[in-house]
Formats: sequence, C-alpha cells, structure tokens
Amino acid sequence: MIGGGQGAFIGAVHRLAAALDGQYELVAGAFSSNPDTSRATGRELGLAPERVYGSFQELIEQEKARPESERVQVISIVTPNYLHFAPAKLALESGFDVVVDKPITFSLAEARELAAVLKATGRHLALTHTYTGYPMVKEAKALVASGALGQIRKVYVEYPQGWLSTFAEGDSGNKQAGWRTDPSKSGIAGAMGDIGTHAFNLLEYVTGLQVEKLCADINTVVPGRQLDDDGAVLLRLSGGASGVLVATQVAAGAENNLRLRVYGTLGGLDWQQEDNNSLVVRWPDRPAETRRTGGAYVSAAAAHNTRVPAGHPEGYLEAFANIYRNFALTLQAAHAGQAATPEMRDYPGIADGLRGMAFIETVIASGRSEQKWTDFPTIES
Amino acid sequence: MIGGGQGAFIGAVHRLAAALDGQYELVAGAFSSNPDTSRATGRELGLAPERVYGSFQELIEQEKARPESERVQVISIVTPNYLHFAPAKLALESGFDVVVDKPITFSLAEARELAAVLKATGRHLALTHTYTGYPMVKEAKALVASGALGQIRKVYVEYPQGWLSTFAEGDSGNKQAGWRTDPSKSGIAGAMGDIGTHAFNLLEYVTGLQVEKLCADINTVVPGRQLDDDGAVLLRLSGGASGVLVATQVAAGAENNLRLRVYGTLGGLDWQQEDNNSLVVRWPDRPAETRRTGGAYVSAAAAHNTRVPAGHPEGYLEAFANIYRNFALTLQAAHAGQAATPEMRDYPGIADGLRGMAFIETVIASGRSEQKWTDFPTIES
Amino acid sequence: MIGGGQGAFIGAVHRLAAALDGQYELVAGAFSSNPDTSRATGRELGLAPERVYGSFQELIEQEKARPESERVQVISIVTPNYLHFAPAKLALESGFDVVVDKPITFSLAEARELAAVLKATGRHLALTHTYTGYPMVKEAKALVASGALGQIRKVYVEYPQGWLSTFAEGDSGNKQAGWRTDPSKSGIAGAMGDIGTHAFNLLEYVTGLQVEKLCADINTVVPGRQLDDDGAVLLRLSGGASGVLVATQVAAGAENNLRLRVYGTLGGLDWQQEDNNSLVVRWPDRPAETRRTGGAYVSAAAAHNTRVPAGHPEGYLEAFANIYRNFALTLQAAHAGQAATPEMRDYPGIADGLRGMAFIETVIASGRSEQKWTDFPTIES
Amino acid sequence: MIGGGQGAFIGAVHRLAAALDGQYELVAGAFSSNPDTSRATGRELGLAPERVYGSFQELIEQEKARPESERVQVISIVTPNYLHFAPAKLALESGFDVVVDKPITFSLAEARELAAVLKATGRHLALTHTYTGYPMVKEAKALVASGALGQIRKVYVEYPQGWLSTFAEGDSGNKQAGWRTDPSKSGIAGAMGDIGTHAFNLLEYVTGLQVEKLCADINTVVPGRQLDDDGAVLLRLSGGASGVLVATQVAAGAENNLRLRVYGTLGGLDWQQEDNNSLVVRWPDRPAETRRTGGAYVSAAAAHNTRVPAGHPEGYLEAFANIYRNFALTLQAAHAGQAATPEMRDYPGIADGLRGMAFIETVIASGRSEQKWTDFPTIES
Repeated sequence: MIGGGQGAFIGAVHRLAAALDGQYELVAGAFSSNPDTSRATGRELGLAPERVYGSFQELIEQEKARPESERVQVISIVTPNYLHFAPAKLALESGFDVVVDKPITFSLAEARELAAVLKATGRHLALTHTYTGYPMVKEAKALVASGALGQIRKVYVEYPQGWLSTFAEGDSGNKQAGWRTDPSKSGIAGAMGDIGTHAFNLLEYVTGLQVEKLCADINTVVPGRQLDDDGAVLLRLSGGASGVLVATQVAAGAENNLRLRVYGTLGGLDWQQEDNNSLVVRWPDRPAETRRTGGAYVSAAAAHNTRVPAGHPEGYLEAFANIYRNFALTLQAAHAGQAATPEMRDYPGIADGLRGMAFIETVIASGRSEQKWTDFPTIES
Repeated sequence: MIGGGQGAFIGAVHRLAAALDGQYELVAGAFSSNPDTSRATGRELGLAPERVYGSFQELIEQEKARPESERVQVISIVTPNYLHFAPAKLALESGFDVVVDKPITFSLAEARELAAVLKATGRHLALTHTYTGYPMVKEAKALVASGALGQIRKVYVEYPQGWLSTFAEGDSGNKQAGWRTDPSKSGIAGAMGDIGTHAFNLLEYVTGLQVEKLCADINTVVPGRQLDDDGAVLLRLSGGASGVLVATQVAAGAENNLRLRVYGTLGGLDWQQEDNNSLVVRWPDRPAETRRTGGAYVSAAAAHNTRVPAGHPEGYLEAFANIYRNFALTLQAAHAGQAATPEMRDYPGIADGLRGMAFIETVIASGRSEQKWTDFPTIES
Repeated sequence: MIGGGQGAFIGAVHRLAAALDGQYELVAGAFSSNPDTSRATGRELGLAPERVYGSFQELIEQEKARPESERVQVISIVTPNYLHFAPAKLALESGFDVVVDKPITFSLAEARELAAVLKATGRHLALTHTYTGYPMVKEAKALVASGALGQIRKVYVEYPQGWLSTFAEGDSGNKQAGWRTDPSKSGIAGAMGDIGTHAFNLLEYVTGLQVEKLCADINTVVPGRQLDDDGAVLLRLSGGASGVLVATQVAAGAENNLRLRVYGTLGGLDWQQEDNNSLVVRWPDRPAETRRTGGAYVSAAAAHNTRVPAGHPEGYLEAFANIYRNFALTLQAAHAGQAATPEMRDYPGIADGLRGMAFIETVIASGRSEQKWTDFPTIES
Repeated sequence: MIGGGQGAFIGAVHRLAAALDGQYELVAGAFSSNPDTSRATGRELGLAPERVYGSFQELIEQEKARPESERVQVISIVTPNYLHFAPAKLALESGFDVVVDKPITFSLAEARELAAVLKATGRHLALTHTYTGYPMVKEAKALVASGALGQIRKVYVEYPQGWLSTFAEGDSGNKQAGWRTDPSKSGIAGAMGDIGTHAFNLLEYVTGLQVEKLCADINTVVPGRQLDDDGAVLLRLSGGASGVLVATQVAAGAENNLRLRVYGTLGGLDWQQEDNNSLVVRWPDRPAETRRTGGAYVSAAAAHNTRVPAGHPEGYLEAFANIYRNFALTLQAAHAGQAATPEMRDYPGIADGLRGMAFIETVIASGRSEQKWTDFPTIES
C-alpha cells in the first residue's frame, strides 16, 4: 500500500475492504512521505519493519528485488490525487498490478499516459469507484441492459454532502479538507473531482450511455476556498437521453446520499446509497417493485456481489470489497491462464479513469464558459 | 364556477376543496362552452337549472343582475389556460372576487393586464398553487424565515411525473392530455407551464428568494408532441443562492412527488409531497429532526392550516382547501371592515401569477438560447 | 348532529367529512347538553337558531314534527360513549337514519338492543370506524379476498398512541382526556375501547376472519388513571390463523400510526396509516410491490373510494368521508328504490358495532383472568 | 474454527466478520464431521492441510500440542446447537478462548455447566448475538441508560422471517432448514431458539431490564414440522415495564427485519435492522430525531463500533465483526495485563447465553401451559 498513513480516511477503507474476503494480505507499505509516520503506521498494522518503506520508489524497487513468491503482487495507491500517476506508472512498469483510488490521476493527460503504460505492460489496474460495487447497482445495470425499462430518456444523479459547508480547511488538523480543497494536491476540481466523478461514473455504468455534452454551473460557495465545492450539470447523453448531475459539498446537514434515477420509455429505477440494499423500480401501469439484495430473483451480477442472505444489510465496505474481490478473481484467473468471467471483470478500470478525468476537465471548462453547451472529448477506449 | 364540466379533473378538485370547510356553497356555473354539457354537470351537482349558464359571459352578467344577497360572491375559473384571462377580467370588473387556476393566464402580457384590472377594481384574487397550502410547507417557510437555517445557499426543487411518457394526446378521450399539450390552449409551455410553475412557486414561496437568471434545457421527448414535456433548469437566486429546478412529465412510473430541498449555512430542509405531513430538517452536528403536521411545536402558520390532530394524515385536498379557506377568511375580514391576519392573507395571488408567467416565458426563451444564462425580467409588485 | 359542541374533537371531524362530497348539509343540531354551548356552536356554524336544540330529545321530536321535505334525514351522534344508545334508539324509532361514532354503545347489552331496534325499524345505521375508509385498506381487503396471499396464517395489528402518557385528565381543560378515561362516560374500557376497537375492526375487516379466543394483558400504566391505557392481546382467529393486537396510549412520542400486517401461505401485506396511500405486498420469490392510491391497477373497491389521481395524497378526512359518502349513496339508492352496489354498502354498521362491543367485554375479562385463553362470545349477525 | 463446512451459512459469516478488522487469521479448522468435507473446505480457504482436522477433539488436542506461539488462540464454534457444548467445554478446558454461535447450548442445564467451566478455567467466551453489534443499537442502549427516555414502560420487539413458510426441510438440499427444524439438532425450540433468542437478547441488552414472567402463544404452523415456527409472547419486565415479543418464520415475504421499540415516560426509540444506521427517537413535545451511525453527536459506545464516516452504510457483517473485534481487544488487554475498557468488554457472553437458554425453556413451557403467566427462572450471574 502506498499512502494511507495515520489520519488518512480512504487508506483504512482500502485495508478493510481488501481484508474482508481473505483474498489479500497486507505485507508492505509506504504509508507516508514522512518515514516516521510510515513506520508508525506499519507498526500499528503489524507489518514486518523491513517491509515498511519511506517512499513509494523504495517500496516498488525493494519489493521487486525480492523473490517472486515473496513480493507483493498488487499495489494499492491511496494517496492524494497528485500522487497517483507516478507510483502507478512505476508499479506497472515494475511488473505489479495496481489498485488506485479515484480520480485516477491529476489530469486527463496523465490518465492518457497511464493508459498507454498499462497497455504496454499488459498489467491490470482497478479504480475504486466504490458505488458501482453495490449489489443493487449491479441489479440496476442489469435491468437497464435487459431492456425492461425501454429506451432510456432521463437520468438524474445527485451527490449531496455537507462536510465542507464551513471553511474546514482552515483547521490544520483536518487533513481531508486540507488536501481536497488544495489545487496543488487535488487538481483543477474540488467537489467535481471528489464526488462529481463518482456520480458521473455511476450514471454511465448503470445506463451504458455516454455523456456527449454538458452545461455546468460550478460554484465556490464557502469564502476563501480555492476550488469548487458545489455544482450542477445539465447533460446530453448518447442515444438521445438527457439528464442532470448534482454534486455539492455545502449542503449543510447532508451526509452522503448518492442517488441515481433512470427513466426509460417503459419505466424507471431509483437507487440511493442510504438505502443501498433496495432498488425501486416504478412502472406506469403496475405497482412499483422493490428489489432487494439477496432476493431470489436478482440478476447474476447482483448475486455474485452479495455475501449474506436477504435481510442482512450489506454496506459501503462490502461494496468497496467487491471491487477488490473481483479484481482478485480476475488476477487469479489470469495467473491460472483462464478467462475471467464477466462477473469477475466487473470492476472499474482505466476506461472509467479516462472518462472521469475527461469529465473533470469538461465540467470545469463548462463552468467557465458563457456558452450553454460544452462538448465532451472523445476518449479512445 | 366557470369550467369544470364532465371529464375535467381540476374542476372537481376545486369543488371538493371549496366544500371541505363549509365556507363556500356552489350555486351557479358555466361548466362548459357546450351548453348541454354545462346543464348536465349542473344537474349532477344539484344546482338550480336557472343558474346553470351556457357561457362565462352569461354567468357573470346574469349573476350581477341578481339582488346582491342572492348572487354569487366568488367566481372560480377552472378552464384551460387560454380561457383564464377573459372571464377573470370580466368577473373582477363586474364586482366579483375571483379564484383562478394556475398558470394565471395565457401570457405574461395578459397577467400584467389582469394585475392592472385587479388594482383598479380593488377586488380580490386567489391563484391555486396548491402545494403552498400544505402545513409542512408553511412550516418550511417559517423555518427559513426564522433564520434557523442561516443564509440560504442551495435550492433543489423537482417535480417528476410520468403520465405523459406516451403520446396520450393521441387518445381523443384523454381531455387532460389533449389541452395540456396544445399550444393554442396551454400557451407556449407544456410541462414547464403545468408543473414547472408549481415547482418555481414553491421554491420562491419557501425561501423568500427570487430567481434572477436561469439556464434551461427544455425538451420535447415524446415524438409528435407540440410542447415541451421535460426540462431542467439551473437557477441563480437573489442573495447569492443557486439551485436546480427539474420538471418532467416523461418520467415513466413517477406519480407526482414534488420535492423541495433548501440548504443554508446552518442546516437544510427536505419536503416531499408523497410524505407531505413530514418536514425533515438536517443539521451538521445534531440529529436530523422530523417535524410533523399537528406537532405541538409547529409554527403558527402551520397550525393555522391544520384541521386534525397529529397522526391523522392531511393531504392534497386539505392543502387545496387551505387556499380556499384563507381566501374566504380574507374576504370575510374585508366585508367586516377588519384587517385580515397574516395567516388569512397567506394564499397565492396576483404576484405569484405574474412571476409564474415570467418564469414560463423566461424558461422557454432560455431553452431556445445558446447562451448559458438568461435574465429573469423585473416584475413590478 | 347530536354532540360536537365547542371543544369536542370528533364532532368537527364528522362535519368536515360530511361536507367534503357535498352529500350532506348540516341544518340542525343539539351540540351540547348545555343549551348555551349548543346555541353558540350553532351560531358559529351558521345554523338557523330555531334548529339549534338544547337536547337530543328536543331535536328528534321537533325535527320529526317538521314537514318531511324540511326535516333532517340523517342524524349524526358524536357524543361520548354513554350517550350513544339513547339518541340512536330514539332517532331510529322516530324514522331517522343514524351515523354514530364508535364504539357503538356503552355496553354489549345496549348494542344488542340497538340491533333489535334497527331491525325492527328497517332504518339504516353507519358506524364511523374511520380506518376502513382508506382506499389502500379497501385494496388490502380485496387482495386477501382474491386469494392472492393464500390462506391467512398471521395477523399483526398495532395502534400506538402517546397522548395519554401523562395524567392528562388532571387538566380540567382537556375534555378529550377527561371523558375518555372516565368509566362513567367511556365504559369499562379506556384504550381498548377508544383505539383497540379500531384495530380489532380493521383486522376483521381486511382479513374476513373472526377472533375466536384471545389472551389479553391489560394495564393501567399512568398512576391515578381509572381505566386501561395500554394492552396487548394474543389472538386466535377462525380458519386457524393467529395474531397479536397491540393498543396503547402511553407510548410517549407516538402519534397515531395504526398498522396492519397480514401473512398468508403465499405472501404478506403491510399497511400503515402514516403512509396510508401505500400498501406494501411482499412475496417470497419476487420483489415486494407497493400499491398506491389511484394506481391504474387497484381494485374496484379502492378506486371507488378515491377522489384524486395517483400522487395526490388522500388522508384521514377523506377516509372518514368515504363512510359518509357510501352511507349517502346507500340511502339514495334506498330512496330511489334501487339496490345499492357492494361498493355503496361498504361502510361499517351494526355488525361491526356488535363485534366491537364484544371485543371490549372479552378483552377486559381476559385481562382480569388467570387463564390464558378467553372465548369470544357468539354474535348473532 | 469448528463447523462451517461447505453449505453452511453462519460459518462463512464468522469468517468474514473475523477477517474484516485484521485481528484474526484463520489457521486451523474442523469444518465438518465428514473428514472429506472438512478437507475440501480447508483447501478452499487456503489452510495448511495439516491443520485441517477431522473432528473437534482432534483439532483441540493437536493445536494444544503445538508450541504456544504457533497454536490457535481463539476457537470459533459454528456448528448446529447440539454441537456447541462439548467443543466449547473441551476448548476452554484446554486453555483456548472461545467464540460460540447462539444459542449457546442445547439446554439450560448445559449452559449452566458451561458457565461453571468458564469460571473455573478463567478463559473468555463470546456469544454471537449479532444484533447488539450495530452502532445504533449501542446508541439505543446508551440513550436508555442516560435516562433521557425516563422510566421504561413498554418494550416491543419483533422478528419476522418468511423463509420457513413452506416445508423447506422436505428439500434435502436445504441444510439450514434441515437442522434448524430438527429437535435432535436444534433443541426444544425452533423459531424461538433461532430468532426469538435474538429478539430477547436485544430487548434485555438495550433496556437493561429483565423479563420476569411471560405468556406465550407458540405455534407450529407448517404441517409436518417438528418444532415451533411461530410465536408471540406477552412480557412482564423488571421495574414494572411490560411488552410484546414476536418471532415468526412463516411470515411469507418477510426477510429479516428485526425491530425494537422502547417507550419510557419521556419518549420512545425505534430501531429496525433494515435501516440499521438510523435510530429514531420520538418525543411528545418536540420533533422526532434520527440519530445516524457516524453522527458527530453519538455516544462513545456507538462511535467505538463504527468504521467509516456518516453516510457510508455499515451492515450486518460490520455488526458481527464488532463482536469479534471487541473480543479481540479484550483478549489483547488481558494478554497485556491491562484492564479492558467498557467499550472493549461490550460483547455478548455467558450471561447472555444463560438467559437465552432460560428464555427458550420458559417460552416453550408457557406455550404448553393453560395458565396465563409463567415465571422466568432466576439466573445466577
């Protein structure tokens, strides 16, 4: 693991998620650019001291120097955005598979370069767009793909948070607020990069459609903040659909209730993270139905990503763990020389990363434009 | 009553709402431009045949000719939009008070002329923007006005319906779909006039803010339809707030779940019509609270608009009836030469009508514009 | 109307419910045993002074003395329980149809006598067990009757209130608490008579089953109170089903969320008053469905008792009004010499009243018994 | 691990829960009484073949024979009920700490003997009454203990399931249904032992009260079944409170929505597993509040049992893992010679096991009794 030292949030989540299914064992880390912090974290996690490193370069080099059966196989990169590209590139080039937190890089240019490295090295990469790991999100995607909703016409995705509704970055103890609002660490976007990309990824994942142009109202609401903390985006999608994406971190009192609604010619679906084990499907002429994690009737994709029977709630860590688990299954299949099943390969990867970075750049550009519509760039897949 | 013959929807609602509190008695009507239909409706409703008229002109003239104690006092106009202005103007000029369904007229120009007539005659007019009649909407307005949420920053209002997700106007028996999608009867807007104005009115009512400019994506989704059936609008409001308004009639499976969320510097509120007796208020640092119709702690405005104790659900007709009741109380105060209290005067009127028509014209203009922002016109109050 | 003077709760509800559909006009009343109070109420309601009476006897006698076309047709009795029987009997014997609030009388013996009077006079009587008036309760009954749930096995009904969790009757201004906890006015039961009978009526109405024996834990929780304010009852029903009935008025913080769940061999239903426009139906092997008031797919009974389209919430007053409306339709059919349809005759009546009184007497007896089971008496229908 | 071979449900849950926080490593197992099954499971889980045993005796003996630093420290017993006591006793006597699934033993007598063994050996034991591991259940307990609800008067706990609404044990492939309905494996109770004990444990845990007598209606609803599959129980608790416990496995369509409501003199709380991250608290005179996992305001106990920030749902596995984690923290403190904090010691243990077995025996006896009330036995703590 690279990053995830004391005080970090997402590093701990990666560790919990990786541990859940017993597919990963954490054996080495460069948890911080501060060697003391890195060592302290390593001690807390019970790692062998010689495998706790002071930098990502050191980690990659020294692990690569170990015998193959004794080195790490997958490297998780859970640093702030500006520190994704370099370790990811070096890890891939050194023969490791990589899990990287979103957004994939600091810029679209970096993402393109990383895509080229990935292709050249033939390694594997997973991107932790957590929300696509929920069983009922899988069910939603399967439902759309089945055609049961007809042709998709409208897509609404919203991601309201409230934790940045004050000038939290003014508190030096708030590391999360600090780097996420700092353009030198986060990139050109704040809220749009942090949570807007999740919303964007969720909607493209479930609908199978692609955003073609957009019109964004991007705001920095809290005085003194350097990056956007709020935005709303009108969307035009492939196939003639349209929609709205809302992402804000200044909705005081809101937690994290990412919600997606998709309406087709025949019916609509509604999923929200706060009630993540339910998928509500509404029809014009018959009762709404509530599909549930673990239900006897769910799609193969939903079933594959479920651990316990219906009525035993699964949550965020399980969704996160599904990415890790499917990535592990894919790597195991690769090592065994077998083809991974579609369920195994169902984790976010470089394509999601490229489109996510394109979203960030397009939405910020649109926010600055007086023209209504800004085209989404073509992303070579 | 003018309009509301057999097959109409909103006419029956007006009659139920007016009857509920025993403040109104229906004694005369011109229910249809077809005299047979009008007579049949009058018979069904048990009216004296001589007070069932064949046209609104006839109704107004003949009622005016009756002795003052035997004539109607208030005229409700529940016709399609293109038939609001003429009867309203004639009724006011003939000395009657008027209730008119929304949107107030066919165009902003008509609304301005009606405002002038109203001012000149000194009569009273109520506009049935139903949703502001709900007790918990009153509570929401009182909460914002109290400053408890701090300065308002974000406003989200959405009004998803699904009943026009097919080409329903192709069915000649569907009178509702017929006139509401016909520009000669409905005006320049379809969904935006029919339900967008409700959403707009609700957000301005609760927040006390005014839309200053907007950016609209207006669509006609169902092939063959003559007017918009879908739209999403970015909003900039007075006081620096911003927001999003969504109104669609092609969300297949959606019923009528108008929802408003308002976030200030200190907290946020959430109201949805489907659970109209609850108002959820969320705070960053303490538990969310659910205020309920009839609660011991609600504002005077909410209490005034409630009929039964907490736990006995009130609904759409009660909200509608609150407009009729408050209008009646205001008229009674006027007749008694007394000042109406703020609670009595709390019903939508000409100012709401003017802003609603301005919204329609601005949102349609923005939908056709390549520029991001379109200014909202100044409305003289 | 007999009863319902100033300070009363249920009298006002009866007036609102009767007014809603324009089927009733309030023209006479004996609103209080105090003639001044009665007159004041009459004035407030705009009645002709000569038809505001000082006693129920006076009302019935003088109205009977008027020409048939100028007298009241239906008498609503909204007094405390001890004052139901005498006016109801006199009214029926004097040729009037009667609406009476629940429970029907002070004792089962009185109810049996009233049943005999009703039979002998051939008049009509409606009993306002409000909750059976909700459209989705009608839907629930139709669903059970259709066999879709299979054979019914389990029934759970609960009625938690909190308004008597303090010694409210100690406050002389609290008229509701006063008479409802006074055995000389309320009868042998407090909570079980006031709300237990509603729960009991709801479960027998929806399931079509009858309670055959029961085991009750009846408590007086608040010190100083004279009647039960809390109870829980194990039930054995016809057809081999069993269940639980809970009714309490000391659940501090609870409003009035009557809830019924019924499970059969094939599936289960769930209705709660707080979300009265939804009926949730759960199945073992397919998604739960939510049926909604106004849905295109609902039963004839549900549709008949609905006034506005789906998505426009109906509530308590509408449910109450459905009893008044169906009673009016039945009387109109009778006057016209026509057969009332099943939908028209679908209002609670004497049979519900008899079983309700039997429930009160049985549940109180069981509460005092050391034996587990107490038989429910046979009620001649 | 003892038990948990292929086809088992709860063994896999124990493994996931133990893995989540990285406090446990699975290194040995006797997964089945069938050595082949045991070996196959061991292989699947990647264990060293020499530590996969053919019986629990073998596991305990051989592990004990290993050097202290290389043997298992904690033994998890996840077999059917009839196979809890013997391995638990042997493990404790052999110097191991034990996690055992509920109910703790086959009979109360066995539980008492196990308690004596535990006391004599000075080892530690945890019992996986999962539901007390939820953060908002901790919050509920803290709320009651704080006195904020006043004196507790009413307790309602319900646990509806539907998975045994058919004769599932007739399907030889359904191992779960098979042993859970078999008195030779499950004990004298079916539903009451399987889920009734969970409901009972939850209510005693949260309220801090003890059941003193009860009155049970115990049913075997599905023809051919050997044990109860349904029951309802009236409760009298210490301190004068009363309540109702419902547990059924024949509520066709129900999943697993365990729910607890507690009402005191000042207010009431409501928790349900389906929405486990919320705790609703209702007050007579102010708005209901919804406390949420991760909220800034929650109790120390709730915060201690939470892994991710508010708005990231935790679920069943996290609740289960909290038992494992707190047990590990307690053992680590013991090994370090330190006192465990109250938060560490907050996991179910022998006292819960004893009362659970007493509940099973009392509730079944009451079900067979004609007397209303059956006393709960005294359990020496």
